[in-house]
Amino acid sequence: MDVADLSPAQARERFRTGERVPTAGWCRGWTQANLIAVPAALRYELLLFAHRNPQACPVLDVGEPGAWSTELFSGDLRTDLPGYRLYRHGTAIADLSEVTAQWREDLVPFLIGCSFTFERALLAAGVPVRHLELRTNVPMYVTDVPCESTGNLAGPLVVSMRPVPRELVDTAVEVSGRYPLVHGAPVHVGDPAGIGIGDLDRPDYGDPVQVREGEVPLFWACGMTPHQAVLASGVEYAIGHLPGHMAIMDVRDDHYRVT
Amino acid sequence: MDVADLSPAQARERFRTGERVPTAGWCRGWTQANLIAVPAALRYELLLFAHRNPQACPVLDVGEPGAWSTELFSGDLRTDLPGYRLYRHGTAIADLSEVTAQWREDLVPFLIGCSFTFERALLAAGVPVRHLELRTNVPMYVTDVPCESTGNLAGPLVVSMRPVPRELVDTAVEVSGRYPLVHGAPVHVGDPAGIGIGDLDRPDYGDPVQVREGEVPLFWACGMTPHQAVLASGVEYAIGHLPGHMAIMDVRDDHYRVT
Repeated sequence: MDVADLSPAQARERFRTGERVPTAGWCRGWTQANLIAVPAALRYELLLFAHRNPQACPVLDVGEPGAWSTELFSGDLRTDLPGYRLYRHGTAIADLSEVTAQWREDLVPFLIGCSFTFERALLAAGVPVRHLELRTNVPMYVTDVPCESTGNLAGPLVVSMRPVPRELVDTAVEVSGRYPLVHGAPVHVGDPAGIGIGDLDRPDYGDPVQVREGEVPLFWACGMTPHQAVLASGVEYAIGHLPGHMAIMDVRDDHYRVT
Repeated sequence: MDVADLSPAQARERFRTGERVPTAGWCRGWTQANLIAVPAALRYELLLFAHRNPQACPVLDVGEPGAWSTELFSGDLRTDLPGYRLYRHGTAIADLSEVTAQWREDLVPFLIGCSFTFERALLAAGVPVRHLELRTNVPMYVTDVPCESTGNLAGPLVVSMRPVPRELVDTAVEVSGRYPLVHGAPVHVGDPAGIGIGDLDRPDYGDPVQVREGEVPLFWACGMTPHQAVLASGVEYAIGHLPGHMAIMDVRDDHYRVT
């Protein structure tokens, strides 16, 4: 069975039983989300940071302290993503397949929109998506664009990149712009140096893809941005997804499409 | 000097020196906001409640605990609104001209968008605004529409009402819809009973206005909604503005207009 045809529950079961793989292209028609779980003492700061940076950090759902499922994610957040990253005092200390033992009782899980959600719409509009063709992870970059900060959380904007044929740039902007809660239209088109990206071949997260002759790199705000704030701000403890290894939600992608 | 021509600083000075008056029509071109200040222990809940009810509770700005000004409001939140309402354990216990003595060190002020902000645009589009003509307060009603709740905050949607000539309803919807952060388009058009309003002549807040022959009542989500949640949820302590007696912000109304 093609992974695009799996239901969210089927995909989550495969991840729960050990499959570690980026989720771009999985579960066609279903929403994907970034996970960042922080101690309850920091939940106000994180929600305010998200509120102040809505394009990078659109909050789709929030759990209660210690909860491992939410209204829009009926699986187990501790086991049903294909990979996790553990943060301590602003350092990524481990990548893990499941985090049952690490899921502290005070952790509040936030599920943040992901641009994988609108890739089906890009394809339907005739916009090719290179990392889907290559079955790799999307390339992500830490920019030099600062986010709006809060008292204890600050950090740079993270972006994902997709190369788009020049004649389809307008289409890609328009189509993704219809999904404002999963990052919407690109934040930057063209010159990577304009947002502080030195070398497209060396993404900070995910896999590089080639930008071919006649193509323009398009940069979308990325849900790794709160992870980056956790790193930059020395947050005591946090659990996130492994970049590109998303939570697959029980909500249709069309739910986030505005007309 | 017409109050429409005052700057925010001039208006705030008049309120600080004791003028108690609804602010509809004041400071043409400047944004107005609802105030609700809650104890820091409840700030996460309030921000989450706002996030889950964005049309009624669009957060324009938030202060630090104990602060009495914010980035977008350079006056003194304790004195520079024309009136205040004090809440204790879910009861409105006093209406006050200033709240310096009541402003606890743990209070976190939230400034929430107000539909007064788009009334200039309605007038410019030829849509009459009855309460401006009458120089009264806008009528507001507690509906039977429940908000999305959080663990500790729940309550009904509050709406403001403006009667609009039938042939201008589409215009009013379209014009206000361009201001999504100050409540945007109406949430309900026509029959008051459809949202649980029994008698238009008896608003829960503000002054009644007549709906004349050929006019349709339009209902907009209202920033009194978080006040109502404070009441319905028995919140220990909170300070809000007096209904219709808004905080006049240092931000142009055009800032909240989307094109």
